[in-house]
Amino acid sequence: MAEYKAPLRDIHFVLNELLDAERHYQGLVGAEDATPDMLAAIIDEGAKFAERVLSPLNQSGDREGCRFEDGEVSTPEGFSEAYRQFVAGGWPSLAHEPAWGGQGLPESVGMVISELTGSANWAWSMYPGLSHGAMNTLEAHGTDEQKQVYLTKLVSGEWTGTMCLTEPHCGTDLGLLRTRAEPAGDGSYLISGTKIFISAGEHDMADNIVHIVLARLPDAPAGTKGISLFVVPKFLPDAAGGCGERNSLGCGSIEHKMGIHGNATCVMNFDGARGFLIGPANKGLNCMFTFMNTARLGTALQGLAHAEWGFQNSLAYARERLQMRALTGAKNPQDAADPIIVHPAVRNMLLTQKAFAEGGRALIHYCAQLADQVKQGADPEQRQEADALLAFLTPIAKAFLTEVGFESANQGLQVFGGHGYISEWGMEQNLRDCRISMLYEGTTQIQALDLLGRKVLMTRGESLKRFTRIVHAFCESAEEEGAIRAFVRPLQRLNREWGDLTTNLGMKAMQDREEVGAAAQDYLMYSGYVVLAYFWARMARVAEEKLAQGSDDADFYRAKLQCARFYFERLLPRTLTLSETMLSGADNLMDLDADHFAF
Amino acid sequence: MAEYKAPLRDIHFVLNELLDAERHYQGLVGAEDATPDMLAAIIDEGAKFAERVLSPLNQSGDREGCRFEDGEVSTPEGFSEAYRQFVAGGWPSLAHEPAWGGQGLPESVGMVISELTGSANWAWSMYPGLSHGAMNTLEAHGTDEQKQVYLTKLVSGEWTGTMCLTEPHCGTDLGLLRTRAEPAGDGSYLISGTKIFISAGEHDMADNIVHIVLARLPDAPAGTKGISLFVVPKFLPDAAGGCGERNSLGCGSIEHKMGIHGNATCVMNFDGARGFLIGPANKGLNCMFTFMNTARLGTALQGLAHAEWGFQNSLAYARERLQMRALTGAKNPQDAADPIIVHPAVRNMLLTQKAFAEGGRALIHYCAQLADQVKQGADPEQRQEADALLAFLTPIAKAFLTEVGFESANQGLQVFGGHGYISEWGMEQNLRDCRISMLYEGTTQIQALDLLGRKVLMTRGESLKRFTRIVHAFCESAEEEGAIRAFVRPLQRLNREWGDLTTNLGMKAMQDREEVGAAAQDYLMYSGYVVLAYFWARMARVAEEKLAQGSDDADFYRAKLQCARFYFERLLPRTLTLSETMLSGADNLMDLDADHFAF
Repeated sequence: MAEYKAPLRDIHFVLNELLDAERHYQGLVGAEDATPDMLAAIIDEGAKFAERVLSPLNQSGDREGCRFEDGEVSTPEGFSEAYRQFVAGGWPSLAHEPAWGGQGLPESVGMVISELTGSANWAWSMYPGLSHGAMNTLEAHGTDEQKQVYLTKLVSGEWTGTMCLTEPHCGTDLGLLRTRAEPAGDGSYLISGTKIFISAGEHDMADNIVHIVLARLPDAPAGTKGISLFVVPKFLPDAAGGCGERNSLGCGSIEHKMGIHGNATCVMNFDGARGFLIGPANKGLNCMFTFMNTARLGTALQGLAHAEWGFQNSLAYARERLQMRALTGAKNPQDAADPIIVHPAVRNMLLTQKAFAEGGRALIHYCAQLADQVKQGADPEQRQEADALLAFLTPIAKAFLTEVGFESANQGLQVFGGHGYISEWGMEQNLRDCRISMLYEGTTQIQALDLLGRKVLMTRGESLKRFTRIVHAFCESAEEEGAIRAFVRPLQRLNREWGDLTTNLGMKAMQDREEVGAAAQDYLMYSGYVVLAYFWARMARVAEEKLAQGSDDADFYRAKLQCARFYFERLLPRTLTLSETMLSGADNLMDLDADHFAF
Repeated sequence: MAEYKAPLRDIHFVLNELLDAERHYQGLVGAEDATPDMLAAIIDEGAKFAERVLSPLNQSGDREGCRFEDGEVSTPEGFSEAYRQFVAGGWPSLAHEPAWGGQGLPESVGMVISELTGSANWAWSMYPGLSHGAMNTLEAHGTDEQKQVYLTKLVSGEWTGTMCLTEPHCGTDLGLLRTRAEPAGDGSYLISGTKIFISAGEHDMADNIVHIVLARLPDAPAGTKGISLFVVPKFLPDAAGGCGERNSLGCGSIEHKMGIHGNATCVMNFDGARGFLIGPANKGLNCMFTFMNTARLGTALQGLAHAEWGFQNSLAYARERLQMRALTGAKNPQDAADPIIVHPAVRNMLLTQKAFAEGGRALIHYCAQLADQVKQGADPEQRQEADALLAFLTPIAKAFLTEVGFESANQGLQVFGGHGYISEWGMEQNLRDCRISMLYEGTTQIQALDLLGRKVLMTRGESLKRFTRIVHAFCESAEEEGAIRAFVRPLQRLNREWGDLTTNLGMKAMQDREEVGAAAQDYLMYSGYVVLAYFWARMARVAEEKLAQGSDDADFYRAKLQCARFYFERLLPRTLTLSETMLSGADNLMDLDADHFAF
């Protein structure tokens, strides 16, 4: 009943009309293949795969879930076959280096495909998603031999990968981790310990699984400075590069959880499993950080995915479901009631989803272009600038887009009334699946501390200024123009207020470090609303220009302007509350004794 | 692992210290039995039942769910036995008339027990909850014979009841309903049609199920003015009052849904089933409205229930889980990390839940006292006044408390990080179970239209003024006092602003009816924040008085003041946004053509 249609018109708008992909790729080194025609062809094929292969497995995958028996995990019916087609289509190799079998396209092309597959079926898309994380780690820090042995198999899709970080007693606080790595004397290590929450840790979709594992060497210093990174395959490679001896590791169980039932969340037991050091000893966390931005961007995408999915399906329902009359009189007199899309409250829910999905799309693909520049920028200064800007935007994209993605999925369910609670419509699955996104890859609260503490205050506001200068330049250039002045003025005001609030918080933090934690989440959400306002204003400007040129797609552009107006008038005023609460002081949180929260 | 402990200290605070239950019951007619000792004994027994019998079945009931086979529904293991104990304890008869076997205690006593059972296990508590709805309908509109036959069995708990309103094509819009009632010639009717979403429609916990069904007589006018109410039992009573012939109705299936898995949500097929008219023909909806307030209050309670449950369990986790150090240095140096309750972001989530749970408790039990006054008030004027005030507060309590209850359950899950997503901790169940509360008994959007359209604007603001006068009187009386002046001033300001906003909206609505729908939800949420601010200010005043008197429970009262401060400084500023968006005009919702929401 529920389905996903790739929003190709809007993706085209964001990539080409807003972000000028052609010029972007021309500015990169080694992105010659990313021509507009090539890009269009890839997106068309990706859309077909998402709509025809993955979307039909979304609800059945949730119902069936993964099964665990004797250390083996069976994925839901059709998942394995879909993965086979994904590999046959060459999708895993899209954005990886030709030296290891990749197609050498920029990261941002992969992000478009991830949007399509992730929106159609998030649980399924996590299997290649985790592989992507493992590939990036090996690409950045592996030896050529490790790349030859493992990376080529991951790039081809024959094998998949995982990231093994969390342990039962430590999630956020990786400094506490206990998994041990003993030198085996032959240059390899024997890994022992238990890892939990390992997505795609075990499954039946590929021949081998390559685990990237954080562990401690025997002489390692305590805390985060004593963590090293290892590659630990399920089957040790044989001389021919195929699957050899079974390694001493296994899946102990899979979790029963709220959603993403089609994806196996595994407890992984390493029992003296043979592993190989990646990068320098005791620098494992640093190695992780280099690709953390991309991984977090991948999770930010989940917010967009569930907002888009919820929007599409609740819009279809709102156009069909007949219930009550419009307050201003019948709009559909030939039937017994009007479609519920006539009601302002229903429109409010639909527009909320639309504004977050389309605004989020602009932010995500903008960030993906920055990631391209970090890797393939023409000069070091451009690369460094893009890196700093991406580091600033990443916690915002991750936390803000998943929070508003959850709100959107929740509104989508609400459009259905009581039917939204019933499984067959898929809306409650969309909400359950979405819920994990605010937790993994660093909770919203951790992203908020990263943004305000590490990114903004530790750079004395420099990282914020890098972005507000961009916003300011846009406002200056647009100030004299027509209808979008209504957007530029509030944006300019908020852009200034953002800086003032930051200065204010910086001064408070010097008096009391707790002020950072007390303000961080409101600060992050405030930042998210302003960032999205910038993209909505930019989109409105493009739309206005197209309309002035007499576009024959005028309805599309007018809808963009209308949605921008909705965003500025109905969502952006949330900054009023956030600017007040973030300055309300840490005392109202810290004064209450931990023993006196309840009696 | 997860558990519920009755928050007896806080319930005592609300009932006795805030709402002066003793004086309240003395002012009612026929509430002589509701003495403080009696009340305390009932609450103690109810707490034991909730903690020992219902709480252990909460998670197992979710895991197991209801099973449907050949028209029969099996409830989860232990549910039936718990119901047997509930009946043996005399709980169903608590707040019903002695003439039909009840104990004659006021409605508000029943509300306290509902809080305890509902917080411990919402899915289970819905079985007696639906019976309560059926009993109230029969009590208000049944003939003496109907009361003798059906009500006595419901009051004793031998039989249970349901409310059969919704049909596949009509939920909110009951005017569309199609179920038919044909006169059988002997004074009874033959009922035919399909009802959906019938909670407790079929189960294995009682001998008979009494359905209260909305249907149309053959000559009935179209729309809501042609709906009549019928009592339709699963088994027709025999001459001795027991279960006789099986009626022509049955459960066709049960829904697969997001949560409340322990409660059977049934499709009920009536196939010429014998039924008996309740109240006048074609006045079925009016009959329903008379007890709608109580039913909606029962759902408002669900918001409080899940906020309280989430608060208790996330507080326990936050005190035990060791992760990271406080930003101001180690608070727990003997271990490798501090308990996460040291972090301001975690405290923010805990205090949000606490503020909504405890504020919600005050509002709910205040409303329950109004319901007592409606029924048992000493004079007609008092009854009428209480009725009008309750009518105003009910949509606020229902929609606001379920919305913030969902937010609270969501925050409770978030405190657990990734573990919150795992079923064993119960936090994700709490969120899934909670989600239905914003949908049934009228969605949030319908409550909002009821509040702004019917209650406030149709009375030209009179119903609002009835409440703001109370708030104003409180502020006047408290103005000169100590620390709570910090609460009284913002409350006074908002109380005035509330009136101004209403006037403003009323004028806009005269120009364009859509303005009502466009503003209603923000108006309702705004109203909720002000109402809760009033109760938090009142609670703060009680706490301050107790502290001034030198109470030996000073920690409890200081925590109340602290939580009041948190509410005023961190949650109440949401009114800043709401007062802006509700006035932003209907155009930003209505201008977009329904065909242009997506391309």
